[in-house]
Amino acid sequence: MVANTVQGTGVVEGFAYGPVAWTRPAPVAPPAGGIVPEDGRGAEETRFQAAVEVVAARFAARAEAADGAASEVMEASAALARDRGWVRSATRSIRQGATAETATTVAIGGFIEQLAQLGGRMAERTTDLADIRARIVAELMGLPEPGVPRPTHPVVLLADDLAPADTAGLDPSVVLAIVTRRGGPTSHTAIIARQLGIPCIVAAGSLADIGEHEQVLVDGAHGVVTRSPDPDASAELVARDNALRAEIRAWRGPATTRDGAAIRLLANVQDGAGARTAAAESAAEGVGLFRTELCFLTAQNQPTVEEQAGLYAEVFAAFADGRVVVRTLDAGSDKPVPFVHHAQEDNPALGVRGIRLGRSNPDLMVGQLDAIARAARDSGAVDPHVMAPMVSTVDEAAEFASQCRERGLVPGIMVEVPAVALMAEEFLQVVDFFSIGTNDLTQYTMAADRTSGDLAALTTAWQPAVLRLIARTSAAGMRAGKPVGVCGEAAADPLLACVLTGMGITSLSMAYSAIPAVGVRLGKVTLEQCRSAAARVVEARTDVEAREVAEGLLR
Amino acid sequence: MVANTVQGTGVVEGFAYGPVAWTRPAPVAPPAGGIVPEDGRGAEETRFQAAVEVVAARFAARAEAADGAASEVMEASAALARDRGWVRSATRSIRQGATAETATTVAIGGFIEQLAQLGGRMAERTTDLADIRARIVAELMGLPEPGVPRPTHPVVLLADDLAPADTAGLDPSVVLAIVTRRGGPTSHTAIIARQLGIPCIVAAGSLADIGEHEQVLVDGAHGVVTRSPDPDASAELVARDNALRAEIRAWRGPATTRDGAAIRLLANVQDGAGARTAAAESAAEGVGLFRTELCFLTAQNQPTVEEQAGLYAEVFAAFADGRVVVRTLDAGSDKPVPFVHHAQEDNPALGVRGIRLGRSNPDLMVGQLDAIARAARDSGAVDPHVMAPMVSTVDEAAEFASQCRERGLVPGIMVEVPAVALMAEEFLQVVDFFSIGTNDLTQYTMAADRTSGDLAALTTAWQPAVLRLIARTSAAGMRAGKPVGVCGEAAADPLLACVLTGMGITSLSMAYSAIPAVGVRLGKVTLEQCRSAAARVVEARTDVEAREVAEGLLR
Repeated sequence: MVANTVQGTGVVEGFAYGPVAWTRPAPVAPPAGGIVPEDGRGAEETRFQAAVEVVAARFAARAEAADGAASEVMEASAALARDRGWVRSATRSIRQGATAETATTVAIGGFIEQLAQLGGRMAERTTDLADIRARIVAELMGLPEPGVPRPTHPVVLLADDLAPADTAGLDPSVVLAIVTRRGGPTSHTAIIARQLGIPCIVAAGSLADIGEHEQVLVDGAHGVVTRSPDPDASAELVARDNALRAEIRAWRGPATTRDGAAIRLLANVQDGAGARTAAAESAAEGVGLFRTELCFLTAQNQPTVEEQAGLYAEVFAAFADGRVVVRTLDAGSDKPVPFVHHAQEDNPALGVRGIRLGRSNPDLMVGQLDAIARAARDSGAVDPHVMAPMVSTVDEAAEFASQCRERGLVPGIMVEVPAVALMAEEFLQVVDFFSIGTNDLTQYTMAADRTSGDLAALTTAWQPAVLRLIARTSAAGMRAGKPVGVCGEAAADPLLACVLTGMGITSLSMAYSAIPAVGVRLGKVTLEQCRSAAARVVEARTDVEAREVAEGLLR
Repeated sequence: MVANTVQGTGVVEGFAYGPVAWTRPAPVAPPAGGIVPEDGRGAEETRFQAAVEVVAARFAARAEAADGAASEVMEASAALARDRGWVRSATRSIRQGATAETATTVAIGGFIEQLAQLGGRMAERTTDLADIRARIVAELMGLPEPGVPRPTHPVVLLADDLAPADTAGLDPSVVLAIVTRRGGPTSHTAIIARQLGIPCIVAAGSLADIGEHEQVLVDGAHGVVTRSPDPDASAELVARDNALRAEIRAWRGPATTRDGAAIRLLANVQDGAGARTAAAESAAEGVGLFRTELCFLTAQNQPTVEEQAGLYAEVFAAFADGRVVVRTLDAGSDKPVPFVHHAQEDNPALGVRGIRLGRSNPDLMVGQLDAIARAARDSGAVDPHVMAPMVSTVDEAAEFASQCRERGLVPGIMVEVPAVALMAEEFLQVVDFFSIGTNDLTQYTMAADRTSGDLAALTTAWQPAVLRLIARTSAAGMRAGKPVGVCGEAAADPLLACVLTGMGITSLSMAYSAIPAVGVRLGKVTLEQCRSAAARVVEARTDVEAREVAEGLLR
């Protein structure tokens, strides 16, 4: 039998083999048109409120039961289910005679259309709303909750797209893998599958051809679903994959290549709680990227130096004997700070963001550097490292560096604008370290929005042009004797992590949960293998070729 | 006396020295509040319509009297003055009792707010609307037309920002230079000043300090206004500048360096009429960039092969013995094609544009290449060159090249995505020529929106990182023996044109009106000087340093 395949974008690597289960579709609401008589409208409103409450309460209960990111998305869904905007609009319709089912369908439908107009990440939220609508309508109709099946045997879950409620309730012992027809690398499905360690593929266009109960092999690394594959070969692949996952669960660090070359694996965190978790539950040797946006994005006024210092000190304290690299505020018109004026921009990703905000708001940078210096002093942190995002000229870097040095802070910059990689030597004359943000660097080098599902194939750091910039930046760092780390998604890709190590990258920073898989992979190869892969991938013509070359050399 | 200066962004080079004249401000409309009695509202409506008609007719008359871009912007203003949207809204207010002045002020004010919300280039149009409002209100109040003064002696014109009506009526014999406090490099002021050859500076923040009649020296190349400068030195600079401009007017081509090295200067055109004008009025040796968007952006259905071929043949015919390089459709969600579905995008400049549109619309490319091949055959064009915009991977380039070769077309690509410059060798294995689009290449390399006024300092091709990419691309072309042209704004900068020539760039394509200034500048330097400047600018740390180095070596 010829095995045919469906291609998508792989977002969590790993193999899975088993029968397909499609998620249960949303109920069809009864057709609109019937008018509820005036004396029945009060009861209809009560019935509506009860259904909203049941669905919201279920989300809240799932939020309680889940951890981390899964819990956060369930909480957001509970809030969305009770959202005043649509609930008010539905209530108005009911008071005018609409049935609760119709009122719910229409009110949430309008909300979905508004979000879809906004595009990008906002549009991805429409899946959550459609899911909430389906659940409320099902509740109103007395039907079982739609969404993910609750299988008693292990299945490969297929769906058009999954809502947070679907993914949060997933049991990794019965769901072997997830494949969705839509969604992008930043969709909920991808985020949660990564957290649960379930192989996952998104944007698999022709998925609908695959029928319920059909046997499939899922290859999360390459984004391939194979239909009716050879059972023995598949079982063998899965067994090896399971063994690898067991090894990953058991890994405790520190990371070295097989021949003992050390490589520092660090955690990306955004607050003290995250830093404490990373320190307790992973082998992270420090923080490679402390994102400081959190306390700015909700503040109505600029946080005081004291307020900021308190927050920063928590992160320093969590890694008292490791290094913490603080990144200054990375905001802009797509991630607005309430107390800063952001002009409307046609292309916020190419706009006034990161260090560029400082031109019209010099106080922001001064206050933040003062706070970091104070937090470092209070926590007894040695050599506190600070880096600025979105630097694009040597003058910007030089000014930032002098502001840092005045305060006893070690200055560095993010390498995410191609110009910086191209002028790495000149920038290294004014700063002491680099951290390559591969997501943005790739977005600009390929001129492709990192959040665009349509352009997902272009926005991988395996693109040879991006690998060349990383290699050139790392080589400049080695010549200057200054460290160059990587803190984008690329650092969390175990195979790419070996290539980066071969290029001379000195540290890899990632979500703490990704550290063991990278550590295990590094432990299976020699530094020489890494170097030869690094030398060869930059000669590839395409991203696929680059990955194949690396796979061949890093077996 | 210490001469102090105001710094802005220079958009048209040249020196001017003379007294300041500020543009006359808009009239203050009488306060709203008075209600016109019902029996007076008909007359008020008539008075309103008459004022609209007078102002619109004046714009139309100016459109008649002007040429080219100036004429087009005046026509657009005439249409905007009669625009149904605001006229209807104002008429409604008048029928409800508002005075014509108040109705005009409020209706256009609402329209301006909407456009301002949209940001970017749309927001730049708000200046035109404010100007139309001022003129209609002045007409209603029986006041003289506001806007640019009509001086009897030569002046340096200063303004907050200029509307098309202001710039179109300008007489270059009395207006020595224009400096505006707002506006960007793509504002009307900049476009029209460039066309008229008047030195121009925009975004000169502290301009308001300069008083009426004060003597100033304007340096358009460097964006500097010097207050109360030395009169003799200023007169000397202006005299030299005037001599240069006379030389430019007299220049007839072809372009060579002083020691006789030829460099091909080509025209950017968008239709047959433009091509015929360029052929008749300039020394353009061909078309380096034929933008084919025009027939797509207004079509309700995809133009047929016959329709397209007819339009393309006109351009081939205009340069029957020169080369024409056709660029395939460069559209996207910010420049939408009516018959193509464009998703809403967060960052259209990083979105599905140019060749990427072909993924979901393969017919577009096939139809266009068929039409170009037919037009070339019908016109007897030799070696018709075709290039695709926004190519970012070798696979895209290879597929495009094979589609071209099947039809006897010479395939090339635009170099505007940094990845292409970084992988120039690999791309040159599959295509026959490059054309560097410096505007987009700069935008992506610096991660700064080319239309953003706030980031104007970053979006110059003098940024050393951009110069390095151009140099590397040109060197790859020389090694492969394949031509590399430049068709962005950089080609029209006379000093930068010398540097590009020194890098080995084989042709420079620009607005035909910019050709003589570039030709004159090239004729003053040797190829050796160009080469040494090219070698040195890539070592500069900043854009300012790069320009200074070039100025020093290319005197």
